[in-house]
Amino acid sequence: MSTFGTNFRVTTYGESHCRSVGCIVDGVPPGLGLTEADIQPQLSRRRPGQSALTTPRNEKDRVEIQSGTEFGYTLGTPIAMMVRNEDQRPHDYSEMDLYPRPSHADYTYLQKYGIKASSGGGRSSARETIGRVAAGAIAEKYLALTHNISVVAFVSSVGPIHLPLTLHPESPEYHKFLHNLTRETVDSFLPVRCPDTATGAAMSDLIAKYRDAQDSIGGTVTCVIKNIPAGLGEPCFDKLEAKLAHAMMSIPATKGFEIGSGFAGCEIPGSTHNDAFVKDPVTGKLTTKTNFSGGIQGGISNGMDVYFKVAFKSPATIGQEQNTATYDGKDGVLAAKGRHDPCVVPRAVPIVEAMAAITIMDQLVTQIGREAVRAPLPPVRQPAGVKTSQVVDGSERKEGSGGAGKVTGDE
Amino acid sequence: MSTFGTNFRVTTYGESHCRSVGCIVDGVPPGLGLTEADIQPQLSRRRPGQSALTTPRNEKDRVEIQSGTEFGYTLGTPIAMMVRNEDQRPHDYSEMDLYPRPSHADYTYLQKYGIKASSGGGRSSARETIGRVAAGAIAEKYLALTHNISVVAFVSSVGPIHLPLTLHPESPEYHKFLHNLTRETVDSFLPVRCPDTATGAAMSDLIAKYRDAQDSIGGTVTCVIKNIPAGLGEPCFDKLEAKLAHAMMSIPATKGFEIGSGFAGCEIPGSTHNDAFVKDPVTGKLTTKTNFSGGIQGGISNGMDVYFKVAFKSPATIGQEQNTATYDGKDGVLAAKGRHDPCVVPRAVPIVEAMAAITIMDQLVTQIGREAVRAPLPPVRQPAGVKTSQVVDGSERKEGSGGAGKVTGDE
Amino acid sequence: MSTFGTNFRVTTYGESHCRSVGCIVDGVPPGLGLTEADIQPQLSRRRPGQSALTTPRNEKDRVEIQSGTEFGYTLGTPIAMMVRNEDQRPHDYSEMDLYPRPSHADYTYLQKYGIKASSGGGRSSARETIGRVAAGAIAEKYLALTHNISVVAFVSSVGPIHLPLTLHPESPEYHKFLHNLTRETVDSFLPVRCPDTATGAAMSDLIAKYRDAQDSIGGTVTCVIKNIPAGLGEPCFDKLEAKLAHAMMSIPATKGFEIGSGFAGCEIPGSTHNDAFVKDPVTGKLTTKTNFSGGIQGGISNGMDVYFKVAFKSPATIGQEQNTATYDGKDGVLAAKGRHDPCVVPRAVPIVEAMAAITIMDQLVTQIGREAVRAPLPPVRQPAGVKTSQVVDGSERKEGSGGAGKVTGDE
Amino acid sequence: MSTFGTNFRVTTYGESHCRSVGCIVDGVPPGLGLTEADIQPQLSRRRPGQSALTTPRNEKDRVEIQSGTEFGYTLGTPIAMMVRNEDQRPHDYSEMDLYPRPSHADYTYLQKYGIKASSGGGRSSARETIGRVAAGAIAEKYLALTHNISVVAFVSSVGPIHLPLTLHPESPEYHKFLHNLTRETVDSFLPVRCPDTATGAAMSDLIAKYRDAQDSIGGTVTCVIKNIPAGLGEPCFDKLEAKLAHAMMSIPATKGFEIGSGFAGCEIPGSTHNDAFVKDPVTGKLTTKTNFSGGIQGGISNGMDVYFKVAFKSPATIGQEQNTATYDGKDGVLAAKGRHDPCVVPRAVPIVEAMAAITIMDQLVTQIGREAVRAPLPPVRQPAGVKTSQVVDGSERKEGSGGAGKVTGDE
Repeated sequence: MSTFGTNFRVTTYGESHCRSVGCIVDGVPPGLGLTEADIQPQLSRRRPGQSALTTPRNEKDRVEIQSGTEFGYTLGTPIAMMVRNEDQRPHDYSEMDLYPRPSHADYTYLQKYGIKASSGGGRSSARETIGRVAAGAIAEKYLALTHNISVVAFVSSVGPIHLPLTLHPESPEYHKFLHNLTRETVDSFLPVRCPDTATGAAMSDLIAKYRDAQDSIGGTVTCVIKNIPAGLGEPCFDKLEAKLAHAMMSIPATKGFEIGSGFAGCEIPGSTHNDAFVKDPVTGKLTTKTNFSGGIQGGISNGMDVYFKVAFKSPATIGQEQNTATYDGKDGVLAAKGRHDPCVVPRAVPIVEAMAAITIMDQLVTQIGREAVRAPLPPVRQPAGVKTSQVVDGSERKEGSGGAGKVTGDE
Repeated sequence: MSTFGTNFRVTTYGESHCRSVGCIVDGVPPGLGLTEADIQPQLSRRRPGQSALTTPRNEKDRVEIQSGTEFGYTLGTPIAMMVRNEDQRPHDYSEMDLYPRPSHADYTYLQKYGIKASSGGGRSSARETIGRVAAGAIAEKYLALTHNISVVAFVSSVGPIHLPLTLHPESPEYHKFLHNLTRETVDSFLPVRCPDTATGAAMSDLIAKYRDAQDSIGGTVTCVIKNIPAGLGEPCFDKLEAKLAHAMMSIPATKGFEIGSGFAGCEIPGSTHNDAFVKDPVTGKLTTKTNFSGGIQGGISNGMDVYFKVAFKSPATIGQEQNTATYDGKDGVLAAKGRHDPCVVPRAVPIVEAMAAITIMDQLVTQIGREAVRAPLPPVRQPAGVKTSQVVDGSERKEGSGGAGKVTGDE
Repeated sequence: MSTFGTNFRVTTYGESHCRSVGCIVDGVPPGLGLTEADIQPQLSRRRPGQSALTTPRNEKDRVEIQSGTEFGYTLGTPIAMMVRNEDQRPHDYSEMDLYPRPSHADYTYLQKYGIKASSGGGRSSARETIGRVAAGAIAEKYLALTHNISVVAFVSSVGPIHLPLTLHPESPEYHKFLHNLTRETVDSFLPVRCPDTATGAAMSDLIAKYRDAQDSIGGTVTCVIKNIPAGLGEPCFDKLEAKLAHAMMSIPATKGFEIGSGFAGCEIPGSTHNDAFVKDPVTGKLTTKTNFSGGIQGGISNGMDVYFKVAFKSPATIGQEQNTATYDGKDGVLAAKGRHDPCVVPRAVPIVEAMAAITIMDQLVTQIGREAVRAPLPPVRQPAGVKTSQVVDGSERKEGSGGAGKVTGDE
Repeated sequence: MSTFGTNFRVTTYGESHCRSVGCIVDGVPPGLGLTEADIQPQLSRRRPGQSALTTPRNEKDRVEIQSGTEFGYTLGTPIAMMVRNEDQRPHDYSEMDLYPRPSHADYTYLQKYGIKASSGGGRSSARETIGRVAAGAIAEKYLALTHNISVVAFVSSVGPIHLPLTLHPESPEYHKFLHNLTRETVDSFLPVRCPDTATGAAMSDLIAKYRDAQDSIGGTVTCVIKNIPAGLGEPCFDKLEAKLAHAMMSIPATKGFEIGSGFAGCEIPGSTHNDAFVKDPVTGKLTTKTNFSGGIQGGISNGMDVYFKVAFKSPATIGQEQNTATYDGKDGVLAAKGRHDPCVVPRAVPIVEAMAAITIMDQLVTQIGREAVRAPLPPVRQPAGVKTSQVVDGSERKEGSGGAGKVTGDE
């Protein structure tokens, strides 16, 4: 359905030609400073018309907070947010409506609901993601303010053009690169948002080539989540990577998700792939020498950077003529009118960030609750020398009083 | 948490050294013939000790249905199922317990829960998947009996050894291969469950090599779901591929998921990647010439085969000595005792099938409900000539009475 | 949180002084004729200022559908609805804000969220119910159109004045009275909505008396749901009466809920209280001679009228001076300014109806799904002569082929 | 369905004639001392055969913990618990099976599921409550150990015999009585569990009278929750009283629920019914002079005792002959064989306690999480002198630095 999350919960609404699109965000912490100025930047990064490479429909996408704040602070009650649609008129049927557009959702929405919206694919429109991005901005603000968690995504490939091989999960440089990346850096590489000058230029040329050929091309977005505390993720079905995969694969046009070493990691033997532990000389905490795991083990974050990659297909809407069939099975030729995104990945960057932030926020609230519930119980059955940190404030729990094998407890 | 699904809902329990592992399955249709004989085969395909390539811990894994059936039929009430653990004694701490095992969940479980289970990673054990496989067997029986839906998974790569390139999403042969594959065929290629003699033999050799080196290796499992009706999947957050990704990435040791053309599909231009429609000469329904989409558009199934690939990392438990650190940060050397799976993908096959079946079953129940709720309302706003099928029985809805643009309705 | 329901799911937002209040309704059947004209009447029945007995704040409460419909029909996608607040300015603190108002939510909201909204109790305001009533109107339209289900509530007591004793659960007349009641009849007894002339007049006088004394008084609302099919309600935690109780007790100011014979029923022996079965001479279906059960047995509807009563306390806001304490514990005197409802039950009538309709709709969608999933399986283990009806269309299932004790099945 | 709760989540299974009944409890805090000895006492208070007044089927009801603990401590993973059924054989149909038993769930289960279980009403059996009571015992242990919260229920009426009128919500004595009541006290008034000697004796006689007449009688159970912190309950749909009502009305045979002053409270004017605030001279916290609210305002606990009453109907199974109809509508006479509970309220006491504890535990975990998430944000917009307590440890939050109307914040 249109709701995501348990303790931090987002419900979105809206399609292309209705009055507005938006969301209700429930479970927002009270007392958080929040105005439209916190939301708008990510919406503006998402909106079309940012460059010659994206669709020139220049929608304003101004967000209005409807509820849940007073005098610039959240009340703990649901935050409703709305962005008006500029084109609010559903259009009537035309010749084009005789065809289900290939690889669009026209056909499947009609099969599912038995009614054809004038936009064809109803909620499959990219416009649906506005509510996600608005909700994500709230999560991001809390995560940054209280835990210094930051979420940064970038374009890692367009068609066959990838970031250089030196930037590879086996490479220590790659992890440094990820860890130091900021949104400002990524946005200094417009229009493609690939943080490497030469690669970005090649991608831009490639997208322009497909645009000029009235064709389209896909790509990947990579995302890193930094300063995420250990302990997030709920076994067994709500593992952190499972929730991230769910979140990412719910974004329109996605075809794949990989965490840490991903598909390439399957080919690396365990003796290399295992992330050995080592004590961090500064914090005294355990850290890992490598990070093939992508910061998650057993579905739970280990305190290292979480990073993942999302595949986006080439957009289905192309200006070229396509041989296909009408709803009633007659062969024919379809050509889209107007101008459309030849490649979605530059605009997908803030959407990936938003869904990552929403997912982490929900898991963080859940784990903070679990820890706080655990707090009044005395430590038991911890190996000697174990230090477990509190997510809440980073302070250390009292060390288990017993040595290895010694059971201590509340009775 | 430990619950998955909305209208068909699975809750699992158990870890390695407790009395039993199992599950409660809620929302099972009443009147379905069901005995332990329907469940056991998939559990036996999952269990260790099937070959020299898998861990020789020969657990019996006999399932007992605790509730929800009488005289061999389901009552519509929750089905509880239990498999006893052979080793029910938690062990006390040993030298090995001073170390969090690299890339295991020992460290993260301790960080999350503040208590160390004797098994280390608690619910991250592969033994947790027994409840999933048992629940999946119920879903599979219903799907096959009533909708002829079948779910077949197989090993598509081990380390760098992949099924031949001719078996590629762009290839019509590949789709025929997928569509004709059965579990019987897959199991005739034991021990690896890769349905290609030469490839399977090479994989088997590779696994043996890693086993002998006290090392481990990863691989991928591909899965196809056949005869799935159009209309499954709930926009916008519960898209079919999003729920499948969630389900798959919740299986222990998974690192990636891709649907249809997946990551490779990002490099194929829209003009090729779009799946053009064509009328099926036999059924008269629309079908697609290609299937890059993997049977899903806009998050909703289109009636074509759904296929996806899941990446499994190399097992973290290896016999080789590993340089790592103890919980309190002292450098040391750790070596696992006993024998362990050098590669999990052959045993992962029924787990992938189970999670796929559970996911499809939940979405099918939801969509059947939606259609049945829709049924008493008259058809409106359908393009001329549209035929939408009922998932329930495959019969066609009454055609919209109006032509393109004509609105008909209930008032 | 602010979401209610599983397959028909309502999420509300908004408090007194924000931009708007409203809701998102997910799971609305597609193809349902729906415009603002379907929603507004219940909102108008709910709004303040309908008579001298209710608060004269004459808010317009005009609803705007934001999404999910086109050309007057639902698309199957979420319906967002919004009602603008007339007073959008949160006020700054005054003398009155030093006091938590007795029996208001000022104190508990501050304890829960650690921040004081200018309205004090945030979401506990009656204004929050606008989203519920709007959502309920959609459910009501579907229930009436497709299943002829109607939901009618009325005021059954104000203070110590109750409907005459002849209207009692033990009385056949009472059940006829309930079954024949319509909203039109109820609204012909304005301002109190108690469908008995003498009783209504006495209630009206009593409310006026409390109003003039700057005091307030409580009352009860009784609700009947007619033509509800057998089979609604999900054992064991989501029994129909449990969901109705949850729904009703979530309405502001409620103190009690009883179904069927209720608290009085505890004093009636089983030999009288049991509802014996009898064949309906017209439909041929089983019906019950009495209806102490309130149309529900074992948590599942039996096809008889469902009726229940809800207790509403006297409003906490009164003009009289009250001796109480400030937040920091100083004794003082508080008097509310402005004018307020001396009794909420007349306006609570449409809110009770809305929550009942939402609850029934959710359970109906779930049960229709369950039945449709059951349909392809052959009947088994039914006693001879059993007739079970389909909720979907009222048609009968095929009778079990076997006699008592005979097992038939799918294998 | 069979799952209750969000962050503390109980899923039950089992009916009368299957192998076992039990539950899975997810979200149990790790490190809690827990063995069967913590669970068994409440199960033994629930089980039949405790006195001549209850059914003599003397089932042993021994609980076995299947998972989630090691060395007597919880691991944070799901706790599965099982109680074997003594009679595991479903019986075949007999003459009695031609009749749906009046006011039993035989008819409705058959309508819902289309299959007749040998027990008739499947999950509507009182035996289903075993899983609830087992889960409740875990919640109770945590609540008592960490927050000193106790949950005590007792029989407040049987038929027309009620606790004396001095024990009334308007009476200060009543609140003292509630606050001082313990389970030990209640159980010293066996067999009826009504903590007043004369009343209990009269109830006992009345039950015996109905038993001897092969008839049955209903009653009410009142429950008090003591030391519950302020802040529990989630607006707007998951108000504390709404969740309690849901929980209670899901117990078999319940007909009504009232919180605080309940139905009687509707007749008390606001000037009396409002609970004025006063500073507690010992703790310095705000408390209320009266407690008509039942410890909840706006759906959120205020720190006072929460108390409520639940109505249980007279049991439907009676030895007397009843005129009723067979499934196919033939008039006939039905008489139950064997011996049955003539009144369920004495055994309902631990079930009410269990559901109350489960509900409070779930809300406590949620609110503790919310507070902990709130903690790193600076206090804003609190009236001068406000003291808000932390649920976690009872320590006070830092007071808002500004006076009335002064806004302070994080920016």
